[in-house]
Amino acid sequence: MGIRLAYLGPPGTYSEEAAVDYAPEAAHVAYSSIPAVVRSADEGEVDEAIVPIENSLEGTVTFTVDLLIHQSKLKIKGEVVVAIHHCLLAQPDTRIEDVRVVYSHPQAIAQCRSYLSRQLPDAEHVASLSTASAIEDMRKSRHPAAAISSRRAADILDANIVESNIEDVSNNQTRFVALAAKDGRRTGYDRTSICFDFSEDAPGILYDTLGELASRSVNMIKIESRPDRRSLGRYVFLIDVEGHRDDAVVRDALAGVEARASMFKILGSYPRAEALE
Amino acid sequence: MGIRLAYLGPPGTYSEEAAVDYAPEAAHVAYSSIPAVVRSADEGEVDEAIVPIENSLEGTVTFTVDLLIHQSKLKIKGEVVVAIHHCLLAQPDTRIEDVRVVYSHPQAIAQCRSYLSRQLPDAEHVASLSTASAIEDMRKSRHPAAAISSRRAADILDANIVESNIEDVSNNQTRFVALAAKDGRRTGYDRTSICFDFSEDAPGILYDTLGELASRSVNMIKIESRPDRRSLGRYVFLIDVEGHRDDAVVRDALAGVEARASMFKILGSYPRAEALE
Repeated sequence: MGIRLAYLGPPGTYSEEAAVDYAPEAAHVAYSSIPAVVRSADEGEVDEAIVPIENSLEGTVTFTVDLLIHQSKLKIKGEVVVAIHHCLLAQPDTRIEDVRVVYSHPQAIAQCRSYLSRQLPDAEHVASLSTASAIEDMRKSRHPAAAISSRRAADILDANIVESNIEDVSNNQTRFVALAAKDGRRTGYDRTSICFDFSEDAPGILYDTLGELASRSVNMIKIESRPDRRSLGRYVFLIDVEGHRDDAVVRDALAGVEARASMFKILGSYPRAEALE
Repeated sequence: MGIRLAYLGPPGTYSEEAAVDYAPEAAHVAYSSIPAVVRSADEGEVDEAIVPIENSLEGTVTFTVDLLIHQSKLKIKGEVVVAIHHCLLAQPDTRIEDVRVVYSHPQAIAQCRSYLSRQLPDAEHVASLSTASAIEDMRKSRHPAAAISSRRAADILDANIVESNIEDVSNNQTRFVALAAKDGRRTGYDRTSICFDFSEDAPGILYDTLGELASRSVNMIKIESRPDRRSLGRYVFLIDVEGHRDDAVVRDALAGVEARASMFKILGSYPRAEALE
């Protein structure tokens, strides 16, 4: 598979792990922010882009979703789920009891809060741009330092793992989506993402619209609302359903939704990822 | 009104503005984080706590909502909407063309990105803990500096406003809720917030549950999903409806929702805030 696939770098991030899982043979190209990752595919620098869309603890990555609603013309072509396991790293000559600073992405620090307050109660927490760049920050630190990062980043950057799986809540998973000019072909086990809003605030209008799905037994997997960015209390709805937009029943249901909506957009149909255990 | 009202400080934040709007006569008590604000009311240090719950651009403040779902026993007793207008501040002896650093809360910096890239293209952006503390950071800066903050913070801290309303998108508003041991009394113009989940993933179960509202013409103002924190793809739903839980029709509808749900919680009934223009 000779495609070029953009991801949120540097190498060793969970995004890179998702990119490798999704397309092992692709050329993986690192960008420094989610907008830059998306723009690279929008402008054809790469064939596809992989971005985080949902985490089992934090919920929707609103930043990604808002780009898909308001800016990008890309379609969702695939999805992949990555298990998030954080490790504590330290320099080989650093004793854990001496550590005074812990570097990581703020979300990773938040997800290891219990562990840190138990094991390193006096260490200061300092934000890094990514879990992978935390390793560099640790190495450059003037004080005895540790970093929180993935096993993959530790391996790639040849860092020393002190303890694995230090996250407070197990079952921490992130779902990533692959974006491309066209969405996925029908496989028989698909998921379709749509977004829409209404021009007026009629009572029951959302319920009636969901009836277009329910009356045809099209199963809704997820419903989310995002601000429409024009006024407080008005929303764009994002819905994921089982099935492909080329399935006859899904096609009819989506036509029914579109007829009731003001803005309506199919974000893509794509093969469903297997759930992780 | 001799109550003690906790808010996310320091004085001059938009949270303080909400606290003053909501209860001008209260003793306003600053805390340094949203969890600390909520805890102060949970533990009875204060009578009520005011926290941001939704912004017209960023959407739900998931942090607040997750505290209400999973941790706090407090009820929503009231709401207030604050218009967000950012100002550019500088020291009186600083020329704008010399500014090399701009301090503010990352969200405020993000909301003024176009202005900054137009007016201060070469300045570095540095994160402060709040828009109010950005003023202190500016004053301590070794380089010519500016800050982004509210007019209120500038007034309180006697700082010099260079330009007002520098936000990229007008109509930036934040809705705050007041939390207390008991929710609000029926006024005839109320809003009720609930959350619930389902023990199984039956097709159509959410649609059927929303039917408990729609069949009684109880109008849904907002629907939101949050991860249930146990597994990816399972959600807690948050719904706001028009009316008070003591209105007969709302009471019946909520009983219908509760009967279909696994977990069910009324977060509170409270008088609706007037929309801002």
